[in-house]
Amino acid sequence: MGISIKALVFDVYGTIFDVLSVSKACEEMYPGKGEDLGKTWHSKQMEYLFLHQLMGRYIPFSEVTKEGLRFSINEHLGEKLGAAKEQELFEAFLHLTPYPEVAETLEQLKEKELMVFSNGSHNMLDPLVENAGYAPFFKHIISVDEIKQFKPSLYSYQYMLNKIGLKHEEILFVSSNNWDVAGAKNFGFQTAWINRKKQTVDELGLDPDFIFEDLTGLLNWK
Amino acid sequence: MGISIKALVFDVYGTIFDVLSVSKACEEMYPGKGEDLGKTWHSKQMEYLFLHQLMGRYIPFSEVTKEGLRFSINEHLGEKLGAAKEQELFEAFLHLTPYPEVAETLEQLKEKELMVFSNGSHNMLDPLVENAGYAPFFKHIISVDEIKQFKPSLYSYQYMLNKIGLKHEEILFVSSNNWDVAGAKNFGFQTAWINRKKQTVDELGLDPDFIFEDLTGLLNWK
Repeated sequence: MGISIKALVFDVYGTIFDVLSVSKACEEMYPGKGEDLGKTWHSKQMEYLFLHQLMGRYIPFSEVTKEGLRFSINEHLGEKLGAAKEQELFEAFLHLTPYPEVAETLEQLKEKELMVFSNGSHNMLDPLVENAGYAPFFKHIISVDEIKQFKPSLYSYQYMLNKIGLKHEEILFVSSNNWDVAGAKNFGFQTAWINRKKQTVDELGLDPDFIFEDLTGLLNWK
Repeated sequence: MGISIKALVFDVYGTIFDVLSVSKACEEMYPGKGEDLGKTWHSKQMEYLFLHQLMGRYIPFSEVTKEGLRFSINEHLGEKLGAAKEQELFEAFLHLTPYPEVAETLEQLKEKELMVFSNGSHNMLDPLVENAGYAPFFKHIISVDEIKQFKPSLYSYQYMLNKIGLKHEEILFVSSNNWDVAGAKNFGFQTAWINRKKQTVDELGLDPDFIFEDLTGLLNWK
């Protein structure tokens, strides 16, 4: 299975870390509102990321994340967040909860080259990976901020491929975001969709090559 | 107010017609499921439109609409739709219900140049406008299909501007989709957001110039 695969390239948000774990920080600041605030925050964060890319306006993920937070606070609480509270909630994104199987799975895959490729800017991505203690697993931590083109733009995947110096067919691209798997497939990678939430597969004509319930499915390549 | 405005350019889906009126056709075919089917259909239709554009894959809106429908049927009913039923539901998009104030408002604005500019391909857009009897109101019916770049890409708005032969500042761009208003604003148009559902304004740094509850707010320009 996948004998030619030399490197596993991981998406980060939703794939390694549970993005909705920001709800906990929201709940502490606004009791009873944490889940709604976290869900809307993440959903708007993703929508804004796509919209800025579509409009040709690159804005680092740290800023997009704050825009999403502002919308969510306004939507659910009808207020504006002061700078100190905004910074406090933003920092929840630097301490997301990893999924339980991640560390053990990455450890078992250490014969392969492992790397991450994320829409997160380095000012979010690096502390997140560091704080979880995962930095030693990865040969590269690559951010779209280096080329200022968000996934699923073709340019973003091309940049990553150039940077790691491997061939398309030597890479297995791993993401729990169906749109990211579709983008990677569109670029020509083999793809594994980590379908943690048993979601219906998208109808984009870009089906994943492999579908697993969590990262342990990748142990086929160890 | 807006003395320099020569033309009002209207978005179509959500702005002139109620997209969720497709739920009625869904309900007739699948009793008890119409509202869910319609909502998911439209939401995926929009997500896929953005994703195809982000990936550099232009696919006509008629096809994107069918992809969204397939997802919705699979999501809510766990089945695939046969070709005949798919076509029957697709045709609901050619007979959307217009909002009640549209015809009277357009009639009163006839001293201005009125036109539509839509992500819909002509095979959807033209019959929709015809079926409602609105074709005589519009000097141009412009589809992104002519340039194969979906809104909110800069290229799409630029194409429309070239086609109508006016200047940026002579146009008021009208949409009920906040992302579309943001895209038009990003391109340099004056914009009016028709906020029919009293939604929270997006935090994209591209606020609308005007916000109205329905199209009658445009009578300021008659």
